[in-house]
Amino acid sequence: MLEHIPTKEDILAAHKRISPYIHLTPVFTSHWFDKRVGKPCVFKGEHLQKTGAFKARGAMNAVLVNAEIARGQGFITHSSGNHGAALAWAAAQIGESAYIIMPENAPKTKVAAVRQYGGIITFCKPTLEAREATATKVQSQTGAVLIHPYNNYDIIAGQATATLELLEKHPGLHTLYVPIGGGGLLSGAALANHFFGNAKVVGCEPDASGDAYQSFQSGNWIPAENHHTIADGLKTSLGDKTFKIIAKHVDEIVLVSEEEMKEAWKFAVARLKQLVEPSAAAGLAAALKHQGGGPKGIVLCGGNMDLNPWG
Amino acid sequence: MLEHIPTKEDILAAHKRISPYIHLTPVFTSHWFDKRVGKPCVFKGEHLQKTGAFKARGAMNAVLVNAEIARGQGFITHSSGNHGAALAWAAAQIGESAYIIMPENAPKTKVAAVRQYGGIITFCKPTLEAREATATKVQSQTGAVLIHPYNNYDIIAGQATATLELLEKHPGLHTLYVPIGGGGLLSGAALANHFFGNAKVVGCEPDASGDAYQSFQSGNWIPAENHHTIADGLKTSLGDKTFKIIAKHVDEIVLVSEEEMKEAWKFAVARLKQLVEPSAAAGLAAALKHQGGGPKGIVLCGGNMDLNPWG
Repeated sequence: MLEHIPTKEDILAAHKRISPYIHLTPVFTSHWFDKRVGKPCVFKGEHLQKTGAFKARGAMNAVLVNAEIARGQGFITHSSGNHGAALAWAAAQIGESAYIIMPENAPKTKVAAVRQYGGIITFCKPTLEAREATATKVQSQTGAVLIHPYNNYDIIAGQATATLELLEKHPGLHTLYVPIGGGGLLSGAALANHFFGNAKVVGCEPDASGDAYQSFQSGNWIPAENHHTIADGLKTSLGDKTFKIIAKHVDEIVLVSEEEMKEAWKFAVARLKQLVEPSAAAGLAAALKHQGGGPKGIVLCGGNMDLNPWG
Repeated sequence: MLEHIPTKEDILAAHKRISPYIHLTPVFTSHWFDKRVGKPCVFKGEHLQKTGAFKARGAMNAVLVNAEIARGQGFITHSSGNHGAALAWAAAQIGESAYIIMPENAPKTKVAAVRQYGGIITFCKPTLEAREATATKVQSQTGAVLIHPYNNYDIIAGQATATLELLEKHPGLHTLYVPIGGGGLLSGAALANHFFGNAKVVGCEPDASGDAYQSFQSGNWIPAENHHTIADGLKTSLGDKTFKIIAKHVDEIVLVSEEEMKEAWKFAVARLKQLVEPSAAAGLAAALKHQGGGPKGIVLCGGNMDLNPWG
């Protein structure tokens, strides 16, 4: 279990460790998007990752690192959904149980995904406090190893591998756009770029949930308020570990409106024909309006979303 | 201009002719789908084709074959949308105009696509008769060359190339599932399989618009009635050219319900994270319930669909 900010070697080791389990996801391009932005853009397709989100990377890494300690008692976490599904999936890969604490208003698709991978769900009120209290209770009953969704260095090292792969394929990227929820993906991206790239790193956050922006600007951790945003994966507060890395290695945080995310989501669906979740549209929306000096890389973080056009 | 049913050589020539313009589309797989069906399945991703549908193949072939005749006067067609966008796009590739007759209830996305490729739209009532009458009128005013959406051997030869590519990559397919609207894709698939494959060819049609099924079973051409189906691309009647080929080279037509298509569409979105249009779901739905003896191939015909989950 990593007790320090992941080093270059830690990220490479995580990538080697998880590679037999995860997909090397494809990178998409779009003439239309390039024209709108005025720069060549590449989209890292983590919606096509195992479990439909980048979260499989961190979860698989944390599960493998903690396999000995968890043996027979399993893993536990609280998650708005994608990390829960990812941990259930990752635990199942090595034959362990996964106890998942979920908010009672979690999207149906995400609940179904956790169940499908064999996760054992306990519902709670949709607040961070309720999630953490319920997790502590279930953990004390089961002895399962808690894997925090983002404030965990093994998770961060795992998430960093998405950006590592993007930079290996596109070493000349000038700006990287990465959505921020709890900051696991962004802090991983910032570390991967620090060691393997030379891009400007831009965090992308809904203005309805601008706690990371406020924390970044003020230098002091500010918790998320429970405001509505279509980007349900980005409502979470930063953790102390992710905030520290972001404060040091991220260059800028861009806020995007609900309308900008909706427009960007429609681009993904209408032009790329790829189903991404609204959280992924935050990165696209930021790239569309942000003045960048060269080729842009955007991490499409996930694709788990309820859609039923026929009511 | 082909005056006969496309031969093996005609299909190969069409493929060579259009290859510089079209995408060699990817083939998708899904463990979940394989498990449900009990056979290995492959999905040919024509939703990722230029213009978002297989129609780019036939349109590009017909435009190139007729380029000399059309010079300076352009092309004209009537289409529920995908062929219209494809013809506008194909004509633009060689610097010609495209006049597109569209039903006034065509989906917004399809209207926008025709406009985007520079097509000149005339709207008409949503009946085959109104479309053909309006096309004749605009044709007489412009001298443009009429490219029928499906009842045209150059179109059929072009559409055959989708199945040609699938069979080249997966020569051992036992059953092919192909949606039927006017029959251009299906007759092309049946010919490609006749010359290059050894599969059973199954046409897939919404039961709300079962004219091809009735025609196939009775041996007499029966026109489509204007019933509602979510598969807006599959409402069209067969043409005499497509019906002749289908009657000879197709093995079976399977009817699918609206519910079965909705379920299959949700699979494409939730599992593959691919945005296909409901017409493409007809092929998936048929493959899900049809008893086939070996590996199945399904042509995902297009991905053009209005989606706005936020109203």
